[in-house]
Amino acid sequence: MSTWLTNTWYVAGWDAEIDSAPLARTICGVPMMFYRRLDRSVVAMRDACPHRMLPLSIGIREGDSIRCKYHGLKLGPDGVAEEMPLKTETVNRRICAETFTVAERHRFVWLWIGDKDKADPALIPDLWPCSAEGWTFDGGYYPVACDYRLMIDNLMDLTHETYVHAGSIGQQEILEAPLQCRIEGESVLLSRWMPGIDAPPFWRGALKKPGPVDRWQVCQFILPSAVMIDVGVAPVGAGATIESHDQGVRGMVVDFMTPETETSHHYFWGMARNFDIDDAGFTARFKAQQGGVFAEDREILEAQQAAILANPDMKLNAYRIDEGGVRARQIIARKMRAGEEA
Amino acid sequence: MSTWLTNTWYVAGWDAEIDSAPLARTICGVPMMFYRRLDRSVVAMRDACPHRMLPLSIGIREGDSIRCKYHGLKLGPDGVAEEMPLKTETVNRRICAETFTVAERHRFVWLWIGDKDKADPALIPDLWPCSAEGWTFDGGYYPVACDYRLMIDNLMDLTHETYVHAGSIGQQEILEAPLQCRIEGESVLLSRWMPGIDAPPFWRGALKKPGPVDRWQVCQFILPSAVMIDVGVAPVGAGATIESHDQGVRGMVVDFMTPETETSHHYFWGMARNFDIDDAGFTARFKAQQGGVFAEDREILEAQQAAILANPDMKLNAYRIDEGGVRARQIIARKMRAGEEA
Amino acid sequence: MSTWLTNTWYVAGWDAEIDSAPLARTICGVPMMFYRRLDRSVVAMRDACPHRMLPLSIGIREGDSIRCKYHGLKLGPDGVAEEMPLKTETVNRRICAETFTVAERHRFVWLWIGDKDKADPALIPDLWPCSAEGWTFDGGYYPVACDYRLMIDNLMDLTHETYVHAGSIGQQEILEAPLQCRIEGESVLLSRWMPGIDAPPFWRGALKKPGPVDRWQVCQFILPSAVMIDVGVAPVGAGATIESHDQGVRGMVVDFMTPETETSHHYFWGMARNFDIDDAGFTARFKAQQGGVFAEDREILEAQQAAILANPDMKLNAYRIDEGGVRARQIIARKMRAGEEA
Repeated sequence: MSTWLTNTWYVAGWDAEIDSAPLARTICGVPMMFYRRLDRSVVAMRDACPHRMLPLSIGIREGDSIRCKYHGLKLGPDGVAEEMPLKTETVNRRICAETFTVAERHRFVWLWIGDKDKADPALIPDLWPCSAEGWTFDGGYYPVACDYRLMIDNLMDLTHETYVHAGSIGQQEILEAPLQCRIEGESVLLSRWMPGIDAPPFWRGALKKPGPVDRWQVCQFILPSAVMIDVGVAPVGAGATIESHDQGVRGMVVDFMTPETETSHHYFWGMARNFDIDDAGFTARFKAQQGGVFAEDREILEAQQAAILANPDMKLNAYRIDEGGVRARQIIARKMRAGEEA
Repeated sequence: MSTWLTNTWYVAGWDAEIDSAPLARTICGVPMMFYRRLDRSVVAMRDACPHRMLPLSIGIREGDSIRCKYHGLKLGPDGVAEEMPLKTETVNRRICAETFTVAERHRFVWLWIGDKDKADPALIPDLWPCSAEGWTFDGGYYPVACDYRLMIDNLMDLTHETYVHAGSIGQQEILEAPLQCRIEGESVLLSRWMPGIDAPPFWRGALKKPGPVDRWQVCQFILPSAVMIDVGVAPVGAGATIESHDQGVRGMVVDFMTPETETSHHYFWGMARNFDIDDAGFTARFKAQQGGVFAEDREILEAQQAAILANPDMKLNAYRIDEGGVRARQIIARKMRAGEEA
Repeated sequence: MSTWLTNTWYVAGWDAEIDSAPLARTICGVPMMFYRRLDRSVVAMRDACPHRMLPLSIGIREGDSIRCKYHGLKLGPDGVAEEMPLKTETVNRRICAETFTVAERHRFVWLWIGDKDKADPALIPDLWPCSAEGWTFDGGYYPVACDYRLMIDNLMDLTHETYVHAGSIGQQEILEAPLQCRIEGESVLLSRWMPGIDAPPFWRGALKKPGPVDRWQVCQFILPSAVMIDVGVAPVGAGATIESHDQGVRGMVVDFMTPETETSHHYFWGMARNFDIDDAGFTARFKAQQGGVFAEDREILEAQQAAILANPDMKLNAYRIDEGGVRARQIIARKMRAGEEA
């Protein structure tokens, strides 16, 4: 039994990561490769030739097809054989590589893991800030050598900023703000409302106004493995609330964790924002800073995973700050049980 | 159950690889070491001192004997103790390292794997071109991280040249020539006869004559794990046939795959030829070129082995071009079953 | 079942290795970390936060406590929680990291492995030369990738010096001296008495007198895993005997092997001496030389361990020279059985 859900969409890659040259990436334990057709639509295929299992990702792209680098078996984007190694041999169209259903949305390429006939693009997690009008979005990718759920735990608890990110974004006062956790359907929301405070330098610069602000942080876990963190400030008295706060400046940290193996995952991270959206310099600087912060998390999480393996007689414990991660894991586990019973 | 035959001869090394200093090499899962006596005959011994198991290959050669580097136990070339660590102690001649039967032929040192009393040099595979008069032979050695049978598959099918060796020896027209496969006893022969063609530059240079040629390629699998590829051209009308073709210039690619583990092997390769046999410059240039070509194969085969391990739910499939490899594997499997029943 | 004793003291580190910054070291299969309190006393704790298992050794020292680098759980030197990640949360004092009993003696920090209530500093192996008046002691540390018992074997037999240390301290004449082995309680003593010989250069320089000497070597195995080697020379006629020999110059090679895993250990080595004890230059030169000699042993023992794993069908054999190691292993095994029955 694996630790991840099936019959769900996972991020396979950033839209810009996948191009005409094949990209190899193991997802949910399966070696896969991805490339774009001439019309830019994405192909996802098992990264092993149905003939002698050579990775197709080292093959040769021809039109919309891929030709294996070993014996030249040519497969169409549907995985079906188009040309045998021996050109004179009749093509056996039962020869085919396993293909996977993909979709593009919110700047990502999504991959359906599960029964193909259940794949419905309407089920793609709604990472709306990545593609909403009036917003801009950019980010990066890290392979991380830990169970994807450790990253969910990490993101659903921002108290770790004080210690893990002591040199960058950590702030003692975050620990002092009250924390609210609520479940909405299959989503977990963790909210901090900090009214009438002095804006920290980053937000002061974004707001471009003096005076006290209301500040918020809302972490939201979304199945199967996304966390969006709604952050920002609005001038006191502008009417912002924890539920609705478009009166000031607002950013959405967007994170998606795609399982690679039981102890590693693909981490896609970025930030969308509704201010200074045409400032490419800001985008670049922020992405560099965010990459540095998430590299600090990666270092901690990989050490945590190693310690979990080195201490098989111990188990993770949860305190109040872990409520967000605990609830998210409960939702994943409940969904997995439901899937097994179905 | 292992994937290789026993009661058979395998190549342990090139004759020139084994000298007075011990050479360590694991063969068929057993760590061994090889060295030459003063009379140049070869000793093969388990690479572990019968005393405290230190590899004997890091020991000290004395006359025809080997002295362990740890406590100085001295073993004769028959593996039997000749001197105890404590010189005053009476030698216990029941102390001995396991030795193996070896023979030298065709420029290789051969090792018998199996019951010693069945070892018969007459059973050494007949790699005649390596030592025939009027021929010259040279080659190299690569450790390759894949099942030795994947290399047999590779060599028993030359269509892969078009793709794997696209930048070196690959030729589209090879794919167009008809292919014949036949079994002769425990051998598989795969033949291509290309009559009346224009000689490719390499063969034109070797033949040193203008005009159309008949060209042949005959891959032969020989138990337990050799492939010889008979290649060459003769002027049209000279009388060459697919069976007999000494009318022109002829080369024999000689390959031997010795299992190391289930997923790695020792690959000995070379080419014998019956033309320009005194041209040492040609030999050196050809060996360098052949080494480059086989390095391309190694890269592909190691990627294939990794994919086999990463896709445990898939299996290798065989098409028409794989008939040679399929037949070779059948002969190995049949021989293994016969050995188990006996 | 492990290969080491429990309810016993092992060396965790040199006194000078452990300071206010945590030192991570796996001992007897358990990841641990060590640091000193403000009063310099040593804390030993499981190297995994009881909250989310991050190694505490990458945490932040505060006073006598350690704060986890992930969420800031603060643990006292007794392992008990002193501050929750959320400062407003009431401290749950049932949250605690496993701690271990330590003691300092003979320049080492000792760790009790087993039932805490049985830990008695009086049971610490009596490595008296490391702290005796009129003696000086220094040495080093090597991680060694082999079963700790292979190092005991090595140290309880000095015939290997001839071969392993051929370029440094090896001497053919050592092999010719008679060897006596006796058991004293849970200790094994292996003695060599070489009366009236010419002192080797090292001992001649230490003695600072001409004339023939009596020379001794007494290897002593001490539970659970120490070997002390009493070496030295005295002028002939001064009255030195194998039992009592303080008439000349004397050194004690002190070795302690602490299991890390079944196939690796922490090797603490050094030499105490009762001559030139204020000569720091001598100490430094000797430590460098001894480090070189033990590096030769490490190379051999790691090759031996690899060969043991590569030849699972073979076993270690023992000859007369191995009597010391054999007896030491018997005492360990007998003590382990007694512990299991109790």
